[in-house]
Amino acid sequence: MSLRAELTALVGANHMLTGEQPAYTEDWRGRYHGRALAVVRPGSTAEVAAVVRACAAHGAAIVPQGGNTGLVGGGVPDASGSQVLLSLTRLTAVRAIDAANLTVTVEAGCTLAALHDAVAAQGLLYPLRLASEGSCTIGGNLATNAGGTQVLRWGNARELCLGLEAVTAQGEIWDGLSGLRKDNSGYALRDLLIGSEGTLAILTAATLKLFPMPTARATVLAACASLADAVALLQTARAGLDAALTGFELMSGHALALVARHQPDLRQPLRAPWLALLQADGPAEAPLLDALAGVLADRDAVVAANLQQAQQLWALREAIPLAQSREGLNIKHDIALPISAIPAFVAEADAAVLQAAPGARLVTFGHLGDGNLHYNVQAPEGIDAAAFLAAHEAPINQLVYDTVQRHGGSFSAEHGIGALKVAELAARKPPAALAMMRAIKTALDPHGTLNPGRLLS
Amino acid sequence: MSLRAELTALVGANHMLTGEQPAYTEDWRGRYHGRALAVVRPGSTAEVAAVVRACAAHGAAIVPQGGNTGLVGGGVPDASGSQVLLSLTRLTAVRAIDAANLTVTVEAGCTLAALHDAVAAQGLLYPLRLASEGSCTIGGNLATNAGGTQVLRWGNARELCLGLEAVTAQGEIWDGLSGLRKDNSGYALRDLLIGSEGTLAILTAATLKLFPMPTARATVLAACASLADAVALLQTARAGLDAALTGFELMSGHALALVARHQPDLRQPLRAPWLALLQADGPAEAPLLDALAGVLADRDAVVAANLQQAQQLWALREAIPLAQSREGLNIKHDIALPISAIPAFVAEADAAVLQAAPGARLVTFGHLGDGNLHYNVQAPEGIDAAAFLAAHEAPINQLVYDTVQRHGGSFSAEHGIGALKVAELAARKPPAALAMMRAIKTALDPHGTLNPGRLLS
Repeated sequence: MSLRAELTALVGANHMLTGEQPAYTEDWRGRYHGRALAVVRPGSTAEVAAVVRACAAHGAAIVPQGGNTGLVGGGVPDASGSQVLLSLTRLTAVRAIDAANLTVTVEAGCTLAALHDAVAAQGLLYPLRLASEGSCTIGGNLATNAGGTQVLRWGNARELCLGLEAVTAQGEIWDGLSGLRKDNSGYALRDLLIGSEGTLAILTAATLKLFPMPTARATVLAACASLADAVALLQTARAGLDAALTGFELMSGHALALVARHQPDLRQPLRAPWLALLQADGPAEAPLLDALAGVLADRDAVVAANLQQAQQLWALREAIPLAQSREGLNIKHDIALPISAIPAFVAEADAAVLQAAPGARLVTFGHLGDGNLHYNVQAPEGIDAAAFLAAHEAPINQLVYDTVQRHGGSFSAEHGIGALKVAELAARKPPAALAMMRAIKTALDPHGTLNPGRLLS
Repeated sequence: MSLRAELTALVGANHMLTGEQPAYTEDWRGRYHGRALAVVRPGSTAEVAAVVRACAAHGAAIVPQGGNTGLVGGGVPDASGSQVLLSLTRLTAVRAIDAANLTVTVEAGCTLAALHDAVAAQGLLYPLRLASEGSCTIGGNLATNAGGTQVLRWGNARELCLGLEAVTAQGEIWDGLSGLRKDNSGYALRDLLIGSEGTLAILTAATLKLFPMPTARATVLAACASLADAVALLQTARAGLDAALTGFELMSGHALALVARHQPDLRQPLRAPWLALLQADGPAEAPLLDALAGVLADRDAVVAANLQQAQQLWALREAIPLAQSREGLNIKHDIALPISAIPAFVAEADAAVLQAAPGARLVTFGHLGDGNLHYNVQAPEGIDAAAFLAAHEAPINQLVYDTVQRHGGSFSAEHGIGALKVAELAARKPPAALAMMRAIKTALDPHGTLNPGRLLS
């Protein structure tokens, strides 16, 4: 029997899609255009396992996919037309919420927003926040170890996960769905599979940490004279607010000037070389405001008086990517650095970029609280963006990543490796680490059928 | 050249110990009595790597050891006399404290207490707290993913670690010392090595998260009518205190009766079927006390008025293991459960134990806040402890672990597997998980020379 016939028998003809399926075979930014042997949409973990076994028997490669919101081409098939696209989007159940244990068990295809809603209905919080939360899925969040704006307080997706259910390359189901905060019984398979981008196993469900929903929130926009001043404010805020500090975003004056150009209706209450957006959450409002007053001292700052004002401050931060794309294509870098190294890194990288590409516009913003910068380079005013990228993208990538590395940083903070950064990873990871990664890949997926060409070359 | 001669040339005769070395070859509780081919004490990461290469060339097994404070026989050699004991205790440097990044880079042999002191001198906190902190080492903490009393707020050793330096089974040095909070560049080698008990690589240094030192603390002893009432109090405390809740310990009335018998001078200000010890930390005292007042409502409770009273309350909790050992040998279980399952688990396990061993005394205490119980069984009053253990240890272990498993728990919460629970792990982990673990072990340590016989059989 052909693989297609077998897969149809396993999941039913309605869930077996052939022919052009761009919703599955292209990424949402339109940068990766693949073709699939078939798009298979199993309806249960057992069906996922059966699909994996069938593909293994035929030697067919599998590309697992959640909400298809990735930024690095990790979830779409290559152009060969020989890979099976395994969509997890039918596994959407919130299997159980355990309020006394503060955990939820949820299937891989549930969207992040649907999970937020399900637990909020019980007064609980799942603190991962992403711009794509209406579409991205829990499985994709975990496969890529997603980050976002609240990592400062609650960590990445990895730190929010207690247990996994997954299908191995051999098509076996591993039930590791545990709601335990201590469990030293063998190797950290959970943590190894999280962030492995579908190359070691296929995630089908997870048990995640929940938190009491904070009932008070304070949001502040604060002026910073320099990046060093922003780092100092972060340090003061961490000491003064402790775990109540849930977000600390950074925006350069240049980034906000672009926002002013493309979204002139958005009110910008402060102008400064750098702006910090602080968010604090907790069980009561008065201590938050007291602590914030101490942190801000006589700094120029705007404290949101209500939820609407807080949303307006966040809208500024969220407007930057859109303003950038309206300004034209740009060279993006999703990088992480030790927070203490950020001022020196930006000074060095800015100088090097401007030497390589005089007039280039530096649009720097990101999650200062966890050291993750979005360090983006836009064509000079009046220069064609496509021509600028063709001439400068590769050398600017190289010099930015070299500068990152010199400062102890990472060329991949939260978006992952996917297809985009495979060569970068092979070139920049220490040989001892690469050797361990390759040995692990061969051990768990000896025939290389799980998401080949992604993460490791 | 013989291996001993080679090792002597590598580390110097002063750091190469032969003959009887019970400080290294026996565990501190005297339960494991091994013999070593040699005790080697390298003085640097490069020397560790050289020792590993020499041993690999001779096919000699290596047992890495930190402070030798383990509870499961994971860090002492077997009785063959053929294993090399590699002590990390000369690698003690605190290499760097980065206050703006809130990180410290420290070598594996530094004791936990020495690290606390080094960072406290800069107003910073490393929040792992263990009874053995004067002797246990950072490398051992990470190799065993140590837990303790503050996991509720700050997580296990794994969640406190950002980067590792390690020597592979091939004797290569992996420099993964990163102080990054986001770094999605390949598989989570750090998390895989943490908790692997020296069976996949030898940890030589780590970069760890620090936190601002909390400047206010509140400590409370609260009466609970039942275990279900204690779980309800925990839930109320988490909502009311949020991250300020840093500890939530549980003690049974029976456990405290043993303390009263063996340490009659320790004042016990409350009597109840169960007692909870709550600790809250934060940047200011008034909000902590306000929140605690709301959490406790009209519950019978004692709030420590000063540091000395707080220490007296903690002394009660810390006195339980000593009181137990004065009462005689007992059957210990370091287990974890979903917090919501603890009342039902204890009811079932108590009934099963008492049916198997009528009159047995159940001494239950532990870290309710993270679901980790120390569920210990003492011989009936007046019965010889050794005879009781000989008759009942194996069947009681089996019925306790079976009950744990039925409730979704783990037979190993924070002490690890070592030599003690190798058979338990092989019997109780799902086959798909065991297969992945064995494949990873073979991939990273193909000749099986790193801590053989530990963790995996």
